[in-house]
Amino acid sequence: MSNPSAAILVIGDEILSGRTRDSNLHYLSCELTKIGINLQEARLIPDNATEIISAVKWLSSKYDYLFTSGGIGPTHDDITADCIAEAFETEINIREDAFKLLENYYSTQNIEFNKSRQRMARIPNSAKLIDNPISVAPGFQLENVFVMAGVPNIFQSMVKSVIPSLLSGKPILSKSVRIPRGEGEIAAALKKIASDHENVSIGSYPYNDGDKFGTNIVVRGVDKNELQNIAEKLESTLS
Amino acid sequence: MSNPSAAILVIGDEILSGRTRDSNLHYLSCELTKIGINLQEARLIPDNATEIISAVKWLSSKYDYLFTSGGIGPTHDDITADCIAEAFETEINIREDAFKLLENYYSTQNIEFNKSRQRMARIPNSAKLIDNPISVAPGFQLENVFVMAGVPNIFQSMVKSVIPSLLSGKPILSKSVRIPRGEGEIAAALKKIASDHENVSIGSYPYNDGDKFGTNIVVRGVDKNELQNIAEKLESTLS
Repeated sequence: MSNPSAAILVIGDEILSGRTRDSNLHYLSCELTKIGINLQEARLIPDNATEIISAVKWLSSKYDYLFTSGGIGPTHDDITADCIAEAFETEINIREDAFKLLENYYSTQNIEFNKSRQRMARIPNSAKLIDNPISVAPGFQLENVFVMAGVPNIFQSMVKSVIPSLLSGKPILSKSVRIPRGEGEIAAALKKIASDHENVSIGSYPYNDGDKFGTNIVVRGVDKNELQNIAEKLESTLS
Repeated sequence: MSNPSAAILVIGDEILSGRTRDSNLHYLSCELTKIGINLQEARLIPDNATEIISAVKWLSSKYDYLFTSGGIGPTHDDITADCIAEAFETEINIREDAFKLLENYYSTQNIEFNKSRQRMARIPNSAKLIDNPISVAPGFQLENVFVMAGVPNIFQSMVKSVIPSLLSGKPILSKSVRIPRGEGEIAAALKKIASDHENVSIGSYPYNDGDKFGTNIVVRGVDKNELQNIAEKLESTLS
């Protein structure tokens, strides 16, 4: 059986505008690699309902899992939950379980549970809540889509809490070999090795140390011994 | 006239696997913002011909400009140029102008200009070369698509060289206001201000200082005075 596939949809203007640098995609890619889920695609789009709905429909039908980040807070630009409901033609309302969680939290904090905050209890009907140990407002899972907050520490804690529920694969291991020769010099031999080992992925990444060009070769696969053998072959053939 | 729109397609496994953190998307988003081009979408996909071709077709028809990064080197996983040619049903071969550039460079470096390196002279027929001051192998522009290297310093130098040829818009300015109150407390007033100023984008980003929640509000638009007025209104209304 091959490893499950996944995509991430990062929703919001902050990365596309250059204001902040992505960290959620990077965090998720590392966590999924560890448990053998192949992250096959990432998309970043603004808070725009048409774009969100169409991306969710497409990515959730194409991959085993879709993870979204961003757009589930209390402000006017937080439209993700409603878009997910629309993508799956599911009803969405303030849901009692989420409402109670938030009501209880704000009452212990002596903070008014106003209309804006109540928006965060809008959860599609059949969705399962995702725990938020940091600021309580939950994410949710609907079908194969995991809807999570964009704030990095909340996103990370939500990922941690959903990981045990995922169908995982064989952890994807990697082995890097640094060859002090340019890509163009080793390309033919590398191609031969790659075609002899089609069940692993062999990537080639040029580096530039001052005026010296070299190549990092990264072998990725699920079998530790095989990776070790290929790494040795790369070293002896290409160095 | 509204600002031109753009997308970026990041091709390669290294970011999706968590091996490296994106920097090309971040660099491009900052550069486009400065010259008034709206980066509306980013996609990251592996070195897979079907995926590359379909993403290039879609994104180049949807946005004014498409920028790609990655997959134009000499190794077996460098398939971007051929995919671009296929997306536009254009012939691709080793092209004399690119061949000469590379031949000349390798001869001055006393490096063999072998078959693998010659692959980097494969350029679609009607494409315009993009200068590579670092390692010479050119990128290219075909229609509204700018095909550039994935190595960050080469990507950046290619972006610098194409920027003057782009139809630019009004630079997109931004103004941040830090409000020491939670998003849920200011959401209603913020919504009112956002709906009074629909030609600017007002984003709301929660922060968490120890146990204190607060909100960074980012106003983005092209009119400096308007941004200043809105920032003052936000401070006086929400603080």
